[in-house]
Amino acid sequence: MVVTHPQTGHQLNIGLDVIAVPRLRASLELAEVSGCDFVLAPLAHPRYERMSVHASPPAVPASPDLPPRIIRTDPLTRSDLELSSGEWMAGVVAKLSPWIRPDSPHTALRTASEAAFAEEVSFAAHMSLRALVIPPPNGGRSGVANLARCLSAALLAAPTLQLWLRLPVVDLPGRVPLSSFAADETSVELPSEDETDPWEVWNVIRTMCGEHPNLGVALELTPDLPLRPLLERWIAEPVRVVLLSTSSYVTNKVGYPVLSRKHQDFIKTMFKMRPFFALTGRAHKVKGGDGYRPFVQYLAHLFGKMPDSSEAETYEAPYYDYLQAPLQPLADNLGSQMYETFEKDPVKYSAYEQAVRMCLVDMQTGKEGKEIVIMVVGAGRGPLVKRCLDAAESTGISVKVYAVEKNPNAIVTLRNMQREPGWENVTVVPGDMRTLKSEVKADILVSELLGSFGDNELSPECLDGANSLLREGGVSIPCSYTSFLAPLSSTKLHNEVKAYGDSMKEMETSYVVKIHRGKLVAAPQPVFTFTHPNRAVVIDNSRYTKLEFCVSETNIVHGFAGFFETDLYKGIKLSINPETFSDRMFSWFPIFFPIASPVYVKGGQTLTAHMWRCVSPSKVWYEWCVTDPSVTVIHNPNGRSHAMSKGS
Amino acid sequence: MVVTHPQTGHQLNIGLDVIAVPRLRASLELAEVSGCDFVLAPLAHPRYERMSVHASPPAVPASPDLPPRIIRTDPLTRSDLELSSGEWMAGVVAKLSPWIRPDSPHTALRTASEAAFAEEVSFAAHMSLRALVIPPPNGGRSGVANLARCLSAALLAAPTLQLWLRLPVVDLPGRVPLSSFAADETSVELPSEDETDPWEVWNVIRTMCGEHPNLGVALELTPDLPLRPLLERWIAEPVRVVLLSTSSYVTNKVGYPVLSRKHQDFIKTMFKMRPFFALTGRAHKVKGGDGYRPFVQYLAHLFGKMPDSSEAETYEAPYYDYLQAPLQPLADNLGSQMYETFEKDPVKYSAYEQAVRMCLVDMQTGKEGKEIVIMVVGAGRGPLVKRCLDAAESTGISVKVYAVEKNPNAIVTLRNMQREPGWENVTVVPGDMRTLKSEVKADILVSELLGSFGDNELSPECLDGANSLLREGGVSIPCSYTSFLAPLSSTKLHNEVKAYGDSMKEMETSYVVKIHRGKLVAAPQPVFTFTHPNRAVVIDNSRYTKLEFCVSETNIVHGFAGFFETDLYKGIKLSINPETFSDRMFSWFPIFFPIASPVYVKGGQTLTAHMWRCVSPSKVWYEWCVTDPSVTVIHNPNGRSHAMSKGS
Repeated sequence: MVVTHPQTGHQLNIGLDVIAVPRLRASLELAEVSGCDFVLAPLAHPRYERMSVHASPPAVPASPDLPPRIIRTDPLTRSDLELSSGEWMAGVVAKLSPWIRPDSPHTALRTASEAAFAEEVSFAAHMSLRALVIPPPNGGRSGVANLARCLSAALLAAPTLQLWLRLPVVDLPGRVPLSSFAADETSVELPSEDETDPWEVWNVIRTMCGEHPNLGVALELTPDLPLRPLLERWIAEPVRVVLLSTSSYVTNKVGYPVLSRKHQDFIKTMFKMRPFFALTGRAHKVKGGDGYRPFVQYLAHLFGKMPDSSEAETYEAPYYDYLQAPLQPLADNLGSQMYETFEKDPVKYSAYEQAVRMCLVDMQTGKEGKEIVIMVVGAGRGPLVKRCLDAAESTGISVKVYAVEKNPNAIVTLRNMQREPGWENVTVVPGDMRTLKSEVKADILVSELLGSFGDNELSPECLDGANSLLREGGVSIPCSYTSFLAPLSSTKLHNEVKAYGDSMKEMETSYVVKIHRGKLVAAPQPVFTFTHPNRAVVIDNSRYTKLEFCVSETNIVHGFAGFFETDLYKGIKLSINPETFSDRMFSWFPIFFPIASPVYVKGGQTLTAHMWRCVSPSKVWYEWCVTDPSVTVIHNPNGRSHAMSKGS
Repeated sequence: MVVTHPQTGHQLNIGLDVIAVPRLRASLELAEVSGCDFVLAPLAHPRYERMSVHASPPAVPASPDLPPRIIRTDPLTRSDLELSSGEWMAGVVAKLSPWIRPDSPHTALRTASEAAFAEEVSFAAHMSLRALVIPPPNGGRSGVANLARCLSAALLAAPTLQLWLRLPVVDLPGRVPLSSFAADETSVELPSEDETDPWEVWNVIRTMCGEHPNLGVALELTPDLPLRPLLERWIAEPVRVVLLSTSSYVTNKVGYPVLSRKHQDFIKTMFKMRPFFALTGRAHKVKGGDGYRPFVQYLAHLFGKMPDSSEAETYEAPYYDYLQAPLQPLADNLGSQMYETFEKDPVKYSAYEQAVRMCLVDMQTGKEGKEIVIMVVGAGRGPLVKRCLDAAESTGISVKVYAVEKNPNAIVTLRNMQREPGWENVTVVPGDMRTLKSEVKADILVSELLGSFGDNELSPECLDGANSLLREGGVSIPCSYTSFLAPLSSTKLHNEVKAYGDSMKEMETSYVVKIHRGKLVAAPQPVFTFTHPNRAVVIDNSRYTKLEFCVSETNIVHGFAGFFETDLYKGIKLSINPETFSDRMFSWFPIFFPIASPVYVKGGQTLTAHMWRCVSPSKVWYEWCVTDPSVTVIHNPNGRSHAMSKGS
């Protein structure tokens, strides 16, 4: 049974982890009776003999690149004819034999393990199975190197097979939340906890395997879950299946198996990441039915209770973790569809209207009866012009509006709108705000030139260029904006960048992206602020900021997430900074600045980052690097890989 | 004056660091009078006005990609017509203006510094100067980020200009040699010392600039030098000029200026790296002449006392830091010139002769009068055959020698040699030792199949293949061999690998190289051992070893240097392991295994490395990684970038 959410249509696949499998079809039938649609089953038959290298002469190896070590008389496992290939692919996730110990100190067991590992991988690939689940390593993070090599070799040898490393997450006794300590007391952790912390183990293996996209996590939830910040690190990791032990269930007042609030919360978070789920452990007797059915039903019930997606979520879902190049509206002309998307935002234009209204009222006080001149620079297809007219109408203040736009295609739309009622006082002015000369000066200059990182679509350069259009004492809406940056952990996004191309160029580019499988490991901090109008004699829009982030939980930092906040007028704000987010606004996704070699940061350490905004006569670009706890190269020196062109 | 070594012909360039330069020609003349052949002179004239951005309207920038910030009425500096362009290039190394402080907390000074930095770089590039020396940063390693960005930008903007960062090396008070502590007490260092340690400062800047090959060090020796292990880290760095303060000199009994033993030792080490030298500081009055002449003369005297190069050094010098692909004698046939080079080694063949002689004597005891059968497998052009005959002759033991060789071209040489006197008992057998069948069995199997890393030219596979040629109880010469590995710091070698191609493939390849600008940061440790003959039923030549190196001084590890030791017969050894090196032997250079992202290791930390020797039916390859103090990717998984082919 695949559970489908009644509103969202999202699907939930629940499987059953089986230990002994005399006959695979019987196991699949048991799973189906329990409401599950696949089984996690051992790939090899445990009773078939598999001897190690030192006992008899070599057999022909399974693959020409695998060493000739396994000798047997029995077959490896059941015949592949037991199920149809469709049943194998949809119904079976295989488990590697639990006796395989590539990091055993005993050479014979180690070499036999290496050979068996390669053999089972080869068979799973042959069967086109969904994935092969690797048993939990038991050596701590310093005892997994040879397992990592086996995985690394398998990922290359079987390029279509998923390998999921099973990791039980348990509470670490003695682990104290770092926030309860002063900063200088954060080194009280015991090293032995790091050694066995499943995330640390995973991090070593993932790094050794080069963050291979086919390497995933089979996360096993136990009755004792760790603290929320420790659990949340898994959001940034490729968790492919969540295994839930029946022993994690508790019995509620009326005798049904349910989960604790802590388990529920984490599972709900994981639902959004859409992994498979599977039940593991014994089906002890509970109310609600036989076998695993009550446990499965409770999980399906939790899933069904997930709230319906918001309008913004529905719009955003297709963009999850999809990297886009930032817009370059100065260099390129936007298409009509792009304008339409942006004009739909329910929050942004209301805020602009309110800001213009407040500003009109403030200005009227001084110059009763006189027409107020508003210039909308970068008017596009006119949404801001419309809001300015609305604001004027609602205040009864008479205005003259100039709509300045450099895109000749958008001018067509504006000229058509001009014929509509209410647009009598609108003048359409084709041209670039930076070069336009005007006898008339604006009282209010309205613009919407902000990118995900505030200044990254060259709003400062454009508005400085339009300075001569604004009268002395005039107001710019927005008045100011500030970019924000936070260190981000996201294997997913780092892999997406690598998928674009595995060279430094891709790592030195910033991307607009709706971050889904990622976690901010510290709160965003302000980076660059611009205030308008800027009346300095010589305007310098280059910036340099050093940022120090206190990271509370050990993490890998793959780059930085960038946001902005803007003050349109006297406290009317728009923000995509998660801490001050303008609810329901969807005009901007965050920006992502990758780090070529991810940085490991221990809980309690400070991450020092440097960010430059560099300006030349022809372009603007960012450079960034980390200098603590380790030093990275300066990314994008001289804008060699990515820059915003000033060209018109 | 350029000092030329009387024997070696090596040259020493000595320069003079001048502070104030009213006229450049006068300074050059002063330098010449003092025995120097170049000056380190300020590039910009300190009294010419250079105003910062906020004072007046912008000027045209020096380069289209540099911001328009510098405004002046005076020229930047003296006219370039003051000297001929030849004099500029040969006679002047320029110094950046000392007031430039890119990391100043004062925005005005910072931005003016950035602009002046770019301007002086542009002018130095315009003049085709040898190098521009950057004044010592004074902010500690956490206060050099913006300087590093200026350097990074300059290295890209002026791709032919060398930038040398001036760094005074001083003794760090309170620094205790780590070796005097037990391992668990190594964390007693004060962090403030790391902060100001010039190597740490350099390491941050070098890393941020991506280890750019045009970025070098101007190392300034002060009266107080640090401990030798700290000093030696500079051997692995691109030191382009050694600046020696006159205050570092002491007066000897007869009144002449001389250097302490510590200074002498370090300078002699640096002579071998062939940097420029330059005198700095005041020319206080000493015996031996006016001005700087006595100081220069003493340096020239030290240089002249350098010992003549040994034969091995003369042979090796052209190969310093030159990366070669390891030989693949199994897959390719060696050329005649290659054989000739190898046959010249004065140590290797003597050791073989001695080993064969000892073995003959041992064997004769059992079988008086009977002919002893020696098979030389991989006989090449016959040097080992000759040594076997010599050994037999010197012991008076009668032998029958079979010369097995698969290279048909070498067979030509062998057949010709067979006609020479003394070769009556030699039989030439064309063929591959691994497939050859023979009725006659050898008492002694002699081979020279070892590579720089012992087994890396597939000696184990070849000798195992030749097992059937050796009688039960017969002896293999060599009897055994062991590879060794040590972590290596060498910016130079890492850059050489990158120069081959900046992809993972080059970083996953091993190279044979005479390491010159590099330093082992821990003693070599044994890795893989092979013993012959190997009579196991199923032979497994794959290996896995985990190595733990205790690193005493903070360093960057760029990869591993590999060596081998072999026991030819009962203690007759050959070794290229530096700790047991066979003096004067030159047949093997070390092997270098790079690490893609160099690993920073603090003094007292343990570096954990993993090395695999992997074997498939068609090839053999190594994989390697580091798991402590940080985790690297596994290099060369499945031999994807580099492998030794078993093909014949």
